[in-house]
Amino acid sequence: MSTTGITAPAGFTAAALTAGIKPSGNPDMALVVNNGPEFNAAAVFTRNRVVASPVKISREAVADGQVRAVLFNAGNANACNGVQGDRDARASVEQVAELLGVEPTDVGVCSTGLIGELLPMDKVRAGVEKLVPGLGDHGNAAAEAIMTTDLVAKETIVKGEGWTLGGMGKGVGMMSPSLATMLVCFTTDASATPEMLDEALRAASKVTFDTLDIDGSTSTNDTVFLLASGASGVTPSQEELNAAVLEASEDIARQMQADAEGVTKRVTVTVEGTSTDEQAVNAARTLARDNLFKCAMFGSDPNWGRVLAAVGMADADMDPDRISVYFNGQAVCENTTGTPNAREVDLSGADIDVLVNLGVDGPGRATVRTTDLSHDYVHINSAYSS
Amino acid sequence: MSTTGITAPAGFTAAALTAGIKPSGNPDMALVVNNGPEFNAAAVFTRNRVVASPVKISREAVADGQVRAVLFNAGNANACNGVQGDRDARASVEQVAELLGVEPTDVGVCSTGLIGELLPMDKVRAGVEKLVPGLGDHGNAAAEAIMTTDLVAKETIVKGEGWTLGGMGKGVGMMSPSLATMLVCFTTDASATPEMLDEALRAASKVTFDTLDIDGSTSTNDTVFLLASGASGVTPSQEELNAAVLEASEDIARQMQADAEGVTKRVTVTVEGTSTDEQAVNAARTLARDNLFKCAMFGSDPNWGRVLAAVGMADADMDPDRISVYFNGQAVCENTTGTPNAREVDLSGADIDVLVNLGVDGPGRATVRTTDLSHDYVHINSAYSS
Repeated sequence: MSTTGITAPAGFTAAALTAGIKPSGNPDMALVVNNGPEFNAAAVFTRNRVVASPVKISREAVADGQVRAVLFNAGNANACNGVQGDRDARASVEQVAELLGVEPTDVGVCSTGLIGELLPMDKVRAGVEKLVPGLGDHGNAAAEAIMTTDLVAKETIVKGEGWTLGGMGKGVGMMSPSLATMLVCFTTDASATPEMLDEALRAASKVTFDTLDIDGSTSTNDTVFLLASGASGVTPSQEELNAAVLEASEDIARQMQADAEGVTKRVTVTVEGTSTDEQAVNAARTLARDNLFKCAMFGSDPNWGRVLAAVGMADADMDPDRISVYFNGQAVCENTTGTPNAREVDLSGADIDVLVNLGVDGPGRATVRTTDLSHDYVHINSAYSS
Repeated sequence: MSTTGITAPAGFTAAALTAGIKPSGNPDMALVVNNGPEFNAAAVFTRNRVVASPVKISREAVADGQVRAVLFNAGNANACNGVQGDRDARASVEQVAELLGVEPTDVGVCSTGLIGELLPMDKVRAGVEKLVPGLGDHGNAAAEAIMTTDLVAKETIVKGEGWTLGGMGKGVGMMSPSLATMLVCFTTDASATPEMLDEALRAASKVTFDTLDIDGSTSTNDTVFLLASGASGVTPSQEELNAAVLEASEDIARQMQADAEGVTKRVTVTVEGTSTDEQAVNAARTLARDNLFKCAMFGSDPNWGRVLAAVGMADADMDPDRISVYFNGQAVCENTTGTPNAREVDLSGADIDVLVNLGVDGPGRATVRTTDLSHDYVHINSAYSS
C-alpha cells in the first residue's frame, strides 16, 4: 500500500502520464479509479455561474451518489468552449467508462488550465487509452500530473480506526469565495453512505477551501471529490468521518496557501466582535482581498491603517470607534487608535496572524487564509496565456 | 485672473506652502478661500464607516450649505487618531477661522496621507499662520501641495456663459467604490444655491469619481467640495451647472486614472446586457477589481477567459451561455465561446476598452474606469509607511 495520497486507502488505483496538453512537457493527465466494493461519492463545485464543461459532467455524475472513476487533466480548463467543450468532456468520460467497463454516468472529470481553448482531443484520447492499463499504486504521480503553476504536489493522509482517508489537490491562483481554482480528490476505504460523505465534505469545505482566498478570483472549474470504496469494511461514525475529512481538507488547504502564486507570506486573518459568523467571514474576506493591505504584508509593513480602511467597507456589524487590530498577537490599534510603537511590530517572518475585533458585543468569528501580493504574483499572472 | 485651477473663477484665493509634514520636504499645506459675495457649497464624502477626523469636521461645516474656506494637508491623513485626531482637526479649523475672521463652522478641512499618525500640530499651526497672509492667485500651488504619490498636479477649468468652474484634485491609490483616496475641490463664480450645487455634484460624482476603481480600496478621507462665490453675477440653469460639474469631474477623474499608482494601462470596462444600471456597475466593478484580469492587462494579454471567470461571480443578471466580450472593439468571445484569433488582439497600447455583454435582454449599462496591476503598484504600496 502506498503511504501517501489517494491510493493509500484500500480499493483505489491511479495512473498518470504526459499526454502533451501542457506546453512544458510535464505530466498532465491522471485517472483515479474506485475498485469498490462500494462506490459512494460526494462532491462540491465552484459557485461561479460561468462553469467549465467538466463541472457540468461531474455534477451529473455525482448526482446519484455513485462515482467509480475521475479523469483529470491539467493545462487546459475546457471552460468557455461552448457545445464543443461539453462534447469533448463527455467523449473523454465515455472513453474511460468503456475501457473500465462501467457506465459513463459513474465517471467524473476535472480540468484545469487555460480558459477558452479547445481540448486537444487526439492527445486526450491517446492519453486515456494508456491510463487504464497503467492503473496501480500511483497516487503521487497523479498528484503531480494535476499541477499547473503549482510548485509542489499536494497530498494528505488521515488514519481512522481501521480505515484511511487520502487526498490530492492542486490550486495556486484564481483562489476565492467558494473554492479556489483548485481540484481536490479525497479517497477513503471507509464504508459511508453518499449522505454521510456529503455532510462531511460540505462541513469541511466551509471552513477550509471556502475561506481560502488568495486573490478574490473564483475559478470556473473548482471541484472537490470524496470517493469511498468501503474496502476496509469499517463504518466510521459521522463524527469520525467529519473529523477526518476536516483534517485532510485543512492539510490540503494549508499546502495550497503555502504554494500560492508569488507567495512570500502566509497571512491568516481572523475577525471577531461582530454579530454573526457570516459577517465575520465578510469582513475577513474584505481584508484578505484588499490589495493595499496585501502589498503591506509583502513589505513586512505593519501598516494597520489599511486594515481599518478595508474593514470599514465590509458588510458586517461594527463600532467604527471601537475597532482593535493585533499583528502576531501584539495590539497595534485599540479603539480605532494606534498603540505606541505599533509601527515597530516585527512582520519579517513568513507567517503573519492578523486579528481584528470589530467592537460589537456579538459571537461572530471567522478565519480566512490568504497571502501577500508580491512582484511574483504580478509576474506570473501577466504572462500566463501567452 | 489665473488661467487654471481653483483660483480661475472670480471670488477665490488660495495659498500653499511647505509646513514639513511630508518627509520629502515638498509643499504639503494649502488653503482655499471663498471671498464671496456668496458662500454656497456642497460636498460628498467617503462611504467608508471608518472616517478620518477631517471628514467629520467637514461634514458638519457643509451641513448648512455655507463654506468660506477649506484647509488641506498632505502627508498625514489624520485618520484613526481617536479624540486627539478630532481635536487637532478642530483646532486647525478654529485657527483658520480666527485669522480669516469667519465662523469655525464655515471652514472645512481635508487631509491625505498615512493613517494612524498624529498630525504634527506645531508644524500645522505655523503653516496656517503663514497661509492666510499668503492668499492670492495660487491655485496651481495649492494643487501641487495636496499631492501624495501623485506624479502630476491635477487641475481643470470649465467655462460657462459668463461664469467659470475651476477644480483641483489628488488621488492615486486606495481608489474605489465611493470616491477614491482622493481630495477634490471645485470652485465657481456662478451664483447657485446649495441645493443646486448638491444636485450637480452628486449627479457628476455618481458617474465619475464613484466609478473610478483603481484597486477596490476605499479611503477613510475622500472628500469632494464644490464652492460657489456668485462673483460672476450669473446664475446658470441647473442643466448648465450639471453639465459643467460633470465635465470638470470627468476631467479630474481621467487625470487620476492616468496617474494611478503604478499604472501602465488605462482600462475602461463597460458592461451591458443586464437588467439594471446598478447590476451593470456591480459586474463592471467585479471585473475592474479582479487581480488576474488586471495582471493580464499589464501583460497586454487578451486572456478573455479571466473576464468570464470574473463576471460569473458578479451580482448581476446574466445568461452564462450568452456572454460576449470585446477588447478594443474586437469580439474575443461570443456566446461564452472564444472567437477565432481571439488571442491575437493587440492590447499593447496604453488604453484598453473592454465591453462585456451579459446576454440578458435588459437596459442596464455602466462604465467603470480602472488600471492594470503592475510591478510598480506592488512596489509603491509595499513600502509606503516605512
